[in-house]
Amino acid sequence: MQTIHTIHELRSAVKQAKIDQPGIRIGFVPTMGFLHKGHASLLEAARTQCDLVILSIFVNPLQFGPNEDFERYPRNEEGDLAVAKAAGTDIVFLPSVEEMYPQQTRTIVSVSQVTERLCGASRPGHFDGVATIVSKLFNIVQPDAAYFGLKDAQQIAVITQMVNDLNMPVEIIPCPILRESDGLAMSSRNVYLQPDERKQALVLSASLQMAEGLIREQHTNIDLTMLNEKITRSIQQAPLAVIDYVEILAYPSLETISSLKNVEQIIIALAVKFGKTRLIDNIIIRLV
Amino acid sequence: MQTIHTIHELRSAVKQAKIDQPGIRIGFVPTMGFLHKGHASLLEAARTQCDLVILSIFVNPLQFGPNEDFERYPRNEEGDLAVAKAAGTDIVFLPSVEEMYPQQTRTIVSVSQVTERLCGASRPGHFDGVATIVSKLFNIVQPDAAYFGLKDAQQIAVITQMVNDLNMPVEIIPCPILRESDGLAMSSRNVYLQPDERKQALVLSASLQMAEGLIREQHTNIDLTMLNEKITRSIQQAPLAVIDYVEILAYPSLETISSLKNVEQIIIALAVKFGKTRLIDNIIIRLV
Repeated sequence: MQTIHTIHELRSAVKQAKIDQPGIRIGFVPTMGFLHKGHASLLEAARTQCDLVILSIFVNPLQFGPNEDFERYPRNEEGDLAVAKAAGTDIVFLPSVEEMYPQQTRTIVSVSQVTERLCGASRPGHFDGVATIVSKLFNIVQPDAAYFGLKDAQQIAVITQMVNDLNMPVEIIPCPILRESDGLAMSSRNVYLQPDERKQALVLSASLQMAEGLIREQHTNIDLTMLNEKITRSIQQAPLAVIDYVEILAYPSLETISSLKNVEQIIIALAVKFGKTRLIDNIIIRLV
Repeated sequence: MQTIHTIHELRSAVKQAKIDQPGIRIGFVPTMGFLHKGHASLLEAARTQCDLVILSIFVNPLQFGPNEDFERYPRNEEGDLAVAKAAGTDIVFLPSVEEMYPQQTRTIVSVSQVTERLCGASRPGHFDGVATIVSKLFNIVQPDAAYFGLKDAQQIAVITQMVNDLNMPVEIIPCPILRESDGLAMSSRNVYLQPDERKQALVLSASLQMAEGLIREQHTNIDLTMLNEKITRSIQQAPLAVIDYVEILAYPSLETISSLKNVEQIIIALAVKFGKTRLIDNIIIRLV
């Protein structure tokens, strides 16, 4: 496994691989590090489907708001390299902020509509930062396929929209959410949780499961306003939970819907704060 | 010379060329068609420096404002193909609007600062349209080098900024302005000019030459406000000329300057309407 810190070296390594193995398929897993089993599952998927697996670890300042957790975002390079190696990664790209942004960027890639709701509404500028850094990384790595976890379902919707709109020559591969044995969606931010917050955070996955059960029972007759209220009340049973949003939208368009009639697929998406830690979770339900 | 109308076929042709000739250098000339000798000079530069020369002809609706000349922009496919062939083009890419924008794009590539003045100020949204279509074309063609004419000097500044900021793997090659024998900068829009407008339009290149002469005489002592006024008065000697802007800026940053002291390179840029036709011209002057 090669560890590379500069854009120039990364390009050279990719170029060399293409010379050594013409027609090579390059799989790319862009991350912010502090890797958990969810990230490992993306690397393993890439390993199965590609000849060369490249992981990037970069905590991207551009996608954090001024009052967000950029500075204290958890970092663990040694642990990350161990996870990467165990998952069969070929190249780890670990650029510095100065390497990725030698000057303040004047170019922003901005995706509208799919960014209007959910985290796009509560984290202004966040998805511009995501689309811009992913564009940069795609241009540097030039992968054939890129792997993203469905925990950030809106991120996948945004990136898929961007790739289609801008004709980027890369296939976006969504991978399932990985959960702890008790149901909590794996996240680098889980490490922030105090023991009582960690316990109460189970209300997220439990509420999503409850909602899915109700939809499976009542099918398209279900009243979405009532369903939203039930999820909200269920989350509020955890005294430490402060709800940012509970939304039921069409997926992947992320358009609002008034009923489940004539809708192919929905997402129920949650963002909830426990103390200083903002967690997200979601479930995507295919209806037809 | 191959003529291709779809993205899929273009990608296949490029892929095949890369298989047939490993390490091939691809030169790309994106245009809106109605080709003149200026475009031909870009193709010839690409022909000299590259193994495969690809020309695109696409009148991009996204870069035209609601009151601009998208509908009446001049088109001449047959003439364009003859120019392309004579210049040694290998592939002409002629997509339809539906091919490039099957849905309304939700993704915009936006460059700030270098777009604030000149045509960026008088044509709001224009450079977002330019940056977005050029991103799309770069992703489709995946060229090693792309050739642009310096008549659209701000366009080159915008694209260079975008390529640097987004780490696009392409070299931007600026090529000199070509002029008619009487000095008028070549432009597809010159065809709009009525005979009296055509005659008076010479005031653009004449005013730029006059300004360059004054700078060569007075060097960095020149008063830029006075120089701007002299250029303005010179243009106003043409009764049909309606000035959009006369600007003297640092190049390629396009920042405002109060004197020529400690400035490496400037651009004097003009946009002037003659009847319904808006012409631009510029001169770039290296000072040190």
